[in-house]
Amino acid sequence: MSGNTFGTLFRLTTFGESHGPGLGGVVDGCPARLDLDEALIQKALDARKPGQGHGSSARKENDTVRLLSGVFEGQTTGTPIGFFVPNTDQKPQDYTALKDIYRPGHGDFTYEAKYGRRDYRGGGRFSGRETVSRVVGGAIAGQVLAREGIRVQAYTVELGGLAVEKTITDGMLDTLEERPFFAADPAMIETWEERIQTAQNMGDTLGGIVAIRATGVPPGLGEPVFDKLDACLAKAVMSVGAVKGVSIGSGFEAARLLGSNHNDPLTRDGFLSNNAGGILAGISSGQDIVVRAAIKPIPSIAREQRTVNTKGEEQRITLHGRHDVCAIPRIVPVLQAMVALTLTDMLLLQKARK
Amino acid sequence: MSGNTFGTLFRLTTFGESHGPGLGGVVDGCPARLDLDEALIQKALDARKPGQGHGSSARKENDTVRLLSGVFEGQTTGTPIGFFVPNTDQKPQDYTALKDIYRPGHGDFTYEAKYGRRDYRGGGRFSGRETVSRVVGGAIAGQVLAREGIRVQAYTVELGGLAVEKTITDGMLDTLEERPFFAADPAMIETWEERIQTAQNMGDTLGGIVAIRATGVPPGLGEPVFDKLDACLAKAVMSVGAVKGVSIGSGFEAARLLGSNHNDPLTRDGFLSNNAGGILAGISSGQDIVVRAAIKPIPSIAREQRTVNTKGEEQRITLHGRHDVCAIPRIVPVLQAMVALTLTDMLLLQKARK
Amino acid sequence: MSGNTFGTLFRLTTFGESHGPGLGGVVDGCPARLDLDEALIQKALDARKPGQGHGSSARKENDTVRLLSGVFEGQTTGTPIGFFVPNTDQKPQDYTALKDIYRPGHGDFTYEAKYGRRDYRGGGRFSGRETVSRVVGGAIAGQVLAREGIRVQAYTVELGGLAVEKTITDGMLDTLEERPFFAADPAMIETWEERIQTAQNMGDTLGGIVAIRATGVPPGLGEPVFDKLDACLAKAVMSVGAVKGVSIGSGFEAARLLGSNHNDPLTRDGFLSNNAGGILAGISSGQDIVVRAAIKPIPSIAREQRTVNTKGEEQRITLHGRHDVCAIPRIVPVLQAMVALTLTDMLLLQKARK
Amino acid sequence: MSGNTFGTLFRLTTFGESHGPGLGGVVDGCPARLDLDEALIQKALDARKPGQGHGSSARKENDTVRLLSGVFEGQTTGTPIGFFVPNTDQKPQDYTALKDIYRPGHGDFTYEAKYGRRDYRGGGRFSGRETVSRVVGGAIAGQVLAREGIRVQAYTVELGGLAVEKTITDGMLDTLEERPFFAADPAMIETWEERIQTAQNMGDTLGGIVAIRATGVPPGLGEPVFDKLDACLAKAVMSVGAVKGVSIGSGFEAARLLGSNHNDPLTRDGFLSNNAGGILAGISSGQDIVVRAAIKPIPSIAREQRTVNTKGEEQRITLHGRHDVCAIPRIVPVLQAMVALTLTDMLLLQKARK
Repeated sequence: MSGNTFGTLFRLTTFGESHGPGLGGVVDGCPARLDLDEALIQKALDARKPGQGHGSSARKENDTVRLLSGVFEGQTTGTPIGFFVPNTDQKPQDYTALKDIYRPGHGDFTYEAKYGRRDYRGGGRFSGRETVSRVVGGAIAGQVLAREGIRVQAYTVELGGLAVEKTITDGMLDTLEERPFFAADPAMIETWEERIQTAQNMGDTLGGIVAIRATGVPPGLGEPVFDKLDACLAKAVMSVGAVKGVSIGSGFEAARLLGSNHNDPLTRDGFLSNNAGGILAGISSGQDIVVRAAIKPIPSIAREQRTVNTKGEEQRITLHGRHDVCAIPRIVPVLQAMVALTLTDMLLLQKARK
Repeated sequence: MSGNTFGTLFRLTTFGESHGPGLGGVVDGCPARLDLDEALIQKALDARKPGQGHGSSARKENDTVRLLSGVFEGQTTGTPIGFFVPNTDQKPQDYTALKDIYRPGHGDFTYEAKYGRRDYRGGGRFSGRETVSRVVGGAIAGQVLAREGIRVQAYTVELGGLAVEKTITDGMLDTLEERPFFAADPAMIETWEERIQTAQNMGDTLGGIVAIRATGVPPGLGEPVFDKLDACLAKAVMSVGAVKGVSIGSGFEAARLLGSNHNDPLTRDGFLSNNAGGILAGISSGQDIVVRAAIKPIPSIAREQRTVNTKGEEQRITLHGRHDVCAIPRIVPVLQAMVALTLTDMLLLQKARK
Repeated sequence: MSGNTFGTLFRLTTFGESHGPGLGGVVDGCPARLDLDEALIQKALDARKPGQGHGSSARKENDTVRLLSGVFEGQTTGTPIGFFVPNTDQKPQDYTALKDIYRPGHGDFTYEAKYGRRDYRGGGRFSGRETVSRVVGGAIAGQVLAREGIRVQAYTVELGGLAVEKTITDGMLDTLEERPFFAADPAMIETWEERIQTAQNMGDTLGGIVAIRATGVPPGLGEPVFDKLDACLAKAVMSVGAVKGVSIGSGFEAARLLGSNHNDPLTRDGFLSNNAGGILAGISSGQDIVVRAAIKPIPSIAREQRTVNTKGEEQRITLHGRHDVCAIPRIVPVLQAMVALTLTDMLLLQKARK
Repeated sequence: MSGNTFGTLFRLTTFGESHGPGLGGVVDGCPARLDLDEALIQKALDARKPGQGHGSSARKENDTVRLLSGVFEGQTTGTPIGFFVPNTDQKPQDYTALKDIYRPGHGDFTYEAKYGRRDYRGGGRFSGRETVSRVVGGAIAGQVLAREGIRVQAYTVELGGLAVEKTITDGMLDTLEERPFFAADPAMIETWEERIQTAQNMGDTLGGIVAIRATGVPPGLGEPVFDKLDACLAKAVMSVGAVKGVSIGSGFEAARLLGSNHNDPLTRDGFLSNNAGGILAGISSGQDIVVRAAIKPIPSIAREQRTVNTKGEEQRITLHGRHDVCAIPRIVPVLQAMVALTLTDMLLLQKARK
């Protein structure tokens, strides 16, 4: 294990930094004879692209993916799928001033502690740009899942402390992908835009909560006891920068419920509720899988902060540059990708048991 | 990956069921020449033992561990440490009535969906008894960590909806291990005992929240981007039955904070706060690691529930038998073990980088 | 990776030393609902037992295996199968004299170099006794394979430089298991017995060559490019102590053949020859898999040898004790087990691709 | 495991086909702060390039490698190193005739059996061109090893049945890299050139034997019992197409020696011989590691062969096109790369034990 491979049978290995030549990776273990729609991969990338509206980074990237192997005459061959997305709008010189200083809330200090040196240009490997490769991998996984009738959707349920109050229904998610913030409830869009604007005016940043739902998941996925489906989903989601909490189904609310309220009764027509979030004893039950992720506010703020430089001397720092105000909405397709990757891997693992 | 091994370099593989001969496992990759204190392993097992007080299962198990290899003249040899803990108080006949019925909130249905059959005796492999092996592994890991000055402690911060309100200080955790519920605040003990008693009288069960803290962790642990320290901890903790949510540092609160409040300022004397929970960009920062786990109420309740049998026919079920009211306190040493196992593995991985 | 787990989906993790409490392990990933015949496991163990005839160690071990989990009502449940085989005839005091000396051809020096200390009692972990656990795992794997119509057999084709000259036919292998040396050709038995006797009289030891053949293997097993079937078999076989060479099909002879002689022509009725040894481009072709292993002579000889002690001082050493003259026949069931484990893992991996 | 990743801590993941856009990969786990010499990587690639002299394929490829990440200001950063080598001289139309026929000795039939379809252009993934990525990975590994004083060299000891008869000395290997065939003994070059010419005139192909030697390896590398150094080397070497046998030290000769001749005596000044090939009980002893690989003749011959088409009908096939007569010398740098990759991984694993 060296940190840049995800999955056992359906594996994504990624590389790339914010201001290097680009981002790329290898999807290994993709089933053969899948009609791979490259346009769907590009569409997923477009959904996480910077420079699209309120509170978004001004960096302009086309993020055009090129597949380098593993596809022949429009079908996967079962061999590894290499891919590459060039960086085109790097401005590494913007970061020279940060060479010797640790930005609060960022990985500057810890990367240097771990590796003995760091690529200070825009965060290097720990920049949010690494998630480009996750989205490509997730979009391929999504097509494997689609063939089995499984669909993964991610949507925002809270931003800057303002939560969707309606119960989320299937209908609400129908036109999700075209919606600002991937908002679970379109009624929140305007409120959230105002919230973002206010924060931006203050030079500050915001967090939020994203939910990811998978429908059509057959019962039986998950590998107890250590590789339970919920455990693997928790890892997948928490591995995305900015995520500080993960929950399944009832989540932290479970801690306050009585067993008689929390158990989901079974009937001839299925479960009567879904506090389990679609997972019992680490194995999918056939109900919808529901995961939630808590997103911290972007650490790059325009307000002055206390910090130290690499010599340990105290400094004041005010960050300028092309930063988002909130990781939402761009993190939403990334979380969707991670759940898709996890489910695909678990699906293949379960096939091996048949 | 087949689900029963945890870790890359420091690996725990476990086996065993609730009503089989016993629980056991193999710890592979333990550094050689560690003076292994078997009494400390037994002490950790004793801490999760059933039958100790309020709301606890009436099952009586000595849970005596026997090491079967890997230790010579009191020191580890670097070879795998096999261990076994016999079951002595199995009553499999208690479970015959459950052979053809799915208990709500349990893995009965999903295990059958996954494996095509299940050992219905007390949950078989998905019984909480499997955590015996985790605790043994974690107690060995804890001794590796102790040699490096790292200490992991787990404690209850909320039970049945009643939360510790004080800020937790080092002093409060000093005598933690002897305390009922491993309560972070001794002042809560009586309140929680009453809460348990009330639930038990109603035939109902409770959940809660457990925090796990690691002190003395050096900066640099964690393997970005997929095997970040927080991602691996999330998986470790979520892999324990009954856990529905995991958070690091500020956790779900992060979603509501501004960036200017959430960032932990750096000074010559270190960080001024710890919203990060000791992890930045997936790598330990040298601050205390702080993880929280949401525990659902025990699904085995004494009240009548709706369910179906293996033929899909609707049934009413009322569970009798030897069940805990709350997974706390017995889950506390298990969560501590999982964090210790994770940190040990990450510690060895980081050594390989030097 | 810490060295004591073999396989990806069908995994064997082992532990135990020559003079500790015993040998054991965990088989994880065994398909559920397999009717597991424990007598067949014991039979495989009996086949590698010491103390059975010419040139064999005088150590007497019953080697009785006990399954500790994963089987319910005679069927596997899909959960891990723990097992243990106690040591009963340890004589650790026999080895005290070897505490401070490095035996030539043994792992004494290298174990100490690696781990900083060693269990000097009979080789500890690097004793041939560790293979007990491999045989148990392999016997379980063999039953998975049998259900799919795959059979693995191992047999001796050369001992002490005296090779079977006949072409090996199916008929010759029919009664293999009851035959001394698992001799491919019964006509060699007397010759080999004499060879062993002569070597023993000289205080010397012998090597040989073992072949392992798998029939009924479907085309499609193997995971190019790094986990090709032949690559995985080579690792499996070479991981057994005493093996110095591994070959597939034509093996080292391939180096001397012309392409026109080496290629196996394809016809409507299948291949006309099997120089490939059943594997093309790392994937099984449906032909018999044929592997050969070169076995070095046992390093424990009764003749005086030059060596050094742990202080680096020159010493003369003459080994007494309960040693075999040749690793054959006891290594034969071990090699069969390793091939069975490999094929089972590859079989499950290929199922995941369907 | 999906077949295209090699190693645990120092990992190479590769992708690419013979007639797709190119070959590439990711090296993950490379230690940080290594001064990476890109020219050395290119030099290694040049050594395996086609179109260099006697008996070589007429395909012209520049094989220019581009590093895409993981290096900053000339030093590795500890993050993954992506790389890509474009194909420039593909002639896929040359292969249309082979779309529906299985070439003897090739993976055409088995790839189709495994994946349900195949990229028939020049072998697709199972073409020797995939080894481009191995050589890049191996050249990076070689620089990690060099920093520790370890050197890996590969050289030809037999070709077309004509073996080097001299004992190989250090002096003989000094100018190895510039020598045709990477011949261990320059005196063989002319003989081998004639042998190649004769085979080519006959429309036939040849095999041979390559040795790989590592000097400066510290004692202690290797992870018993399943991931012994010799076992991992065997897998590494056997994973290269065309290899039919692997041996360590005395190899198959060991089977014919007496224990008293095979054991390497230890003296104050070190071992007196090296039948062990530098590995005892699966762990490096500090002596030179010596591995040998048997290479089969290239299966693409210009003589008519019997085979079947994808409908199972009998066919005659005569292969034209740009084929080598012998995998030597081009396979030599590939085998060197695989040994370097293995040793680097084992080196990092052993560091984790300190």
